[in-house]
Amino acid sequence: MGQGHRLSSEYRYQQLEQWLLRGIEEQRWRLGERLPSIRALCKEHGLSKATVQHALQRLEAQGLLEARPKAGYFVSLQPRTVRQPQSRVSIEAPRPVNVSELLLDIMRRSAAFDLIPEFRAGDLPAGILALNRSIGRALRRQRGEDYLYYDEPAGDAGLREQLSLHLARRGWAAVPEQLCITSGCQHALFLALQACCKRGDVVAVESPGFYGVLQLLEQLELQVVEVPTSPDTGMDMAALEEVLARWPVRACIVSPAFATPSGALMPLESRQQLLALAEQHDLAVIEDDIYADTALGALPDPLKALDRNERVILCSSFSKSLSRDLRLGWVAGARWHQRILHLKLVSQLASSRYLQQGVAEFIQDGSFATHLRRQRHELRDRRDRLIAFLQAWSTELRVSVPAGGLAVWVELPEGVDTLASYPKALEQGVVITPGPLFSVSGQFSNCLRLSFAHPWDERRTRALNQLPELLLRG
Amino acid sequence: MGQGHRLSSEYRYQQLEQWLLRGIEEQRWRLGERLPSIRALCKEHGLSKATVQHALQRLEAQGLLEARPKAGYFVSLQPRTVRQPQSRVSIEAPRPVNVSELLLDIMRRSAAFDLIPEFRAGDLPAGILALNRSIGRALRRQRGEDYLYYDEPAGDAGLREQLSLHLARRGWAAVPEQLCITSGCQHALFLALQACCKRGDVVAVESPGFYGVLQLLEQLELQVVEVPTSPDTGMDMAALEEVLARWPVRACIVSPAFATPSGALMPLESRQQLLALAEQHDLAVIEDDIYADTALGALPDPLKALDRNERVILCSSFSKSLSRDLRLGWVAGARWHQRILHLKLVSQLASSRYLQQGVAEFIQDGSFATHLRRQRHELRDRRDRLIAFLQAWSTELRVSVPAGGLAVWVELPEGVDTLASYPKALEQGVVITPGPLFSVSGQFSNCLRLSFAHPWDERRTRALNQLPELLLRG
Repeated sequence: MGQGHRLSSEYRYQQLEQWLLRGIEEQRWRLGERLPSIRALCKEHGLSKATVQHALQRLEAQGLLEARPKAGYFVSLQPRTVRQPQSRVSIEAPRPVNVSELLLDIMRRSAAFDLIPEFRAGDLPAGILALNRSIGRALRRQRGEDYLYYDEPAGDAGLREQLSLHLARRGWAAVPEQLCITSGCQHALFLALQACCKRGDVVAVESPGFYGVLQLLEQLELQVVEVPTSPDTGMDMAALEEVLARWPVRACIVSPAFATPSGALMPLESRQQLLALAEQHDLAVIEDDIYADTALGALPDPLKALDRNERVILCSSFSKSLSRDLRLGWVAGARWHQRILHLKLVSQLASSRYLQQGVAEFIQDGSFATHLRRQRHELRDRRDRLIAFLQAWSTELRVSVPAGGLAVWVELPEGVDTLASYPKALEQGVVITPGPLFSVSGQFSNCLRLSFAHPWDERRTRALNQLPELLLRG
Repeated sequence: MGQGHRLSSEYRYQQLEQWLLRGIEEQRWRLGERLPSIRALCKEHGLSKATVQHALQRLEAQGLLEARPKAGYFVSLQPRTVRQPQSRVSIEAPRPVNVSELLLDIMRRSAAFDLIPEFRAGDLPAGILALNRSIGRALRRQRGEDYLYYDEPAGDAGLREQLSLHLARRGWAAVPEQLCITSGCQHALFLALQACCKRGDVVAVESPGFYGVLQLLEQLELQVVEVPTSPDTGMDMAALEEVLARWPVRACIVSPAFATPSGALMPLESRQQLLALAEQHDLAVIEDDIYADTALGALPDPLKALDRNERVILCSSFSKSLSRDLRLGWVAGARWHQRILHLKLVSQLASSRYLQQGVAEFIQDGSFATHLRRQRHELRDRRDRLIAFLQAWSTELRVSVPAGGLAVWVELPEGVDTLASYPKALEQGVVITPGPLFSVSGQFSNCLRLSFAHPWDERRTRALNQLPELLLRG
């Protein structure tokens, strides 16, 4: 089908779709390039606007194109062209957690998701400026005697209302009474674990999984059992089933939407299996939802939306989607909610209404949605550039292609020791996050997490260009 | 010595002092009334300004007069004319804490220090308006990439700098590195107890003492031993010595400046004894300093100022001195400081810089000092009116005369059951804080804490006037 050729079949949109796909594969349009406009495609192929749009939307849904409002359709990274990391299969017995000082130090730097340590520059993005204006307006509106009273432990009712509407748009019809405001997602996880576990209990976690959870388990003197997790479908349900059959597990922490570091989006089938297993083994399921709002496409439903038995504790915050400096998160504690409220009351009485009221307004007037939309395009662009860089670097690499989150997971050849490379990279001004941070069993030594959270600039390019030598000559 | 009579002795200021004292006792000038001006006293008694001032300052130091800038000297409440509560002597063995739902509910209401539940009215005081402006200015000044980074766990360096200067003015030459910002004083106490105690450890507390501490001990599964505490000198050091000789105590929580509910200001001698005992028995001393800035006179030194062996963990916040809605506190963790920082990191990563930067500016530009000065006069006036009311009510009452804090401690005749009166009072729209809340051993049933934190208005007068019937016909 050449230029000017008219499509004849009944399913004309399918022919256009195939034609576009071939064009992308043959690199007629390269990664990041814009396709011809809808109008041009209509004219060229003698198709209606509806037919052309249908074909484009199908390609977008497959993750092959990206729609940018008022700009058109752009070629996205083609996940199937990227060699993705392989999941492991070994399962080890539960054990206490013991995080070393060295790892603690790396974790602290890595929390910034930045390749370049302590790099400060640039003006505030529009979303943060709007947020600050909302908070300023809320301050000026303050009347009455709030300063004389602690807020209720659950937090500002207006913010909980806006959060429940935001969650409802993602498929969970929450009500404000189900939510408790926290000092960030880590605080939500802390309260959740304290509410559903006792010292010595066994908790199942993703492997590789979030190191902050490992630190919490150590602090609360809980035992950990690691469940293999793939960048493709998340926690391996067959492996979880085996773990549950062998050991008495009290809770399971998962991050169904773009888990760090794997970036996986757990498919519906796995989610259903997880909840069935939770029912069967009387588990508490702690859902770390912090990356959901960084989705590069449509916002995914929370696991919580499928929870029929008040078993799923949802934990999240604004730290990845808006600002790490708000320190505002939330927890929906399911059957443990009253206990969580009590824990919060006893350990810090209440949260400050100062910021909560401003953030509620920021969500209510649509500024949060605008911010997420803008950020989505930036993150997709940064992800694609990072993956393109890694693919150009070596065909021996395996790289995840996450549909959300702030980082890719990279698997280097066997024998590479990313932990040993960390201090050398830091000397060169590059922060890598070595694989062994994401496990208690010293695995993933040839893996690392690489962030695409920050704007791509010359300094970052330079930092990335130093990586091959730093890692491979380790 | 009558009017116009000239003083002849060598110590003329002493004669003036005696003459003023007699005048106060004979109610020539009543509570709250202004004394003749310095100029008038000079003229009337043929004394120099310096001599008159010396006499007045001596009476002020005894708590009999209050100096108000640009207004003169006013008659204060005379502590020795008030019958004060008696301290108990019984000591009971350590026990776990078990706070009932009923008490929890009362504690939540009582945290507002308000006689009238959920009463909201009035504009913001000047101090809070200035605070909001400071926070607004800090927001507008925000540049750079703070939103991309978590603050260090210790909190904003600028706020810690201002706090260390504030503490230095109170006699403890703190440096910012010794402080960690928290989500309020309760959070500071939570971190402190977690850092220095293990489950099952015994903690000595004041009795009567702050119920929030009892809740924390319950949550952390610590045991409590109560040490008799008087409104006059605070925790009884002889009793503490006996307790330490009998049981293995790990930590001692005291509130040397205006403890709630006793209102005691611990004298220097007791402070020295406490630190000597702590050294002898290897105790952690947790100093709850939250009421220090509500001093009606000069700000008292913290116990921490005497700490030579890094044993005193100082905990405080702005909740009593400025706003309960900031949720900003601080902890100086002494030898446990690194552990406290780690606990904060693991449980909530960091604090928000948003409010901290504004509060730092509020302290730095002198607004906080102005606010405290203004508040001091208001609180003294409210305290005196409340005590005058209680004295007029019954000569059978014993009432504390605290030199700071937000409440008096009232001892009613034996047999009165303040806990039983609580629900009846609440029905009438009055919140009392029954004595049994301040102990785990069911003592103080004939005592209650009454707040003078809020402006005195008609509704409060009505509420107070209902009290005698509610309590005595219980």
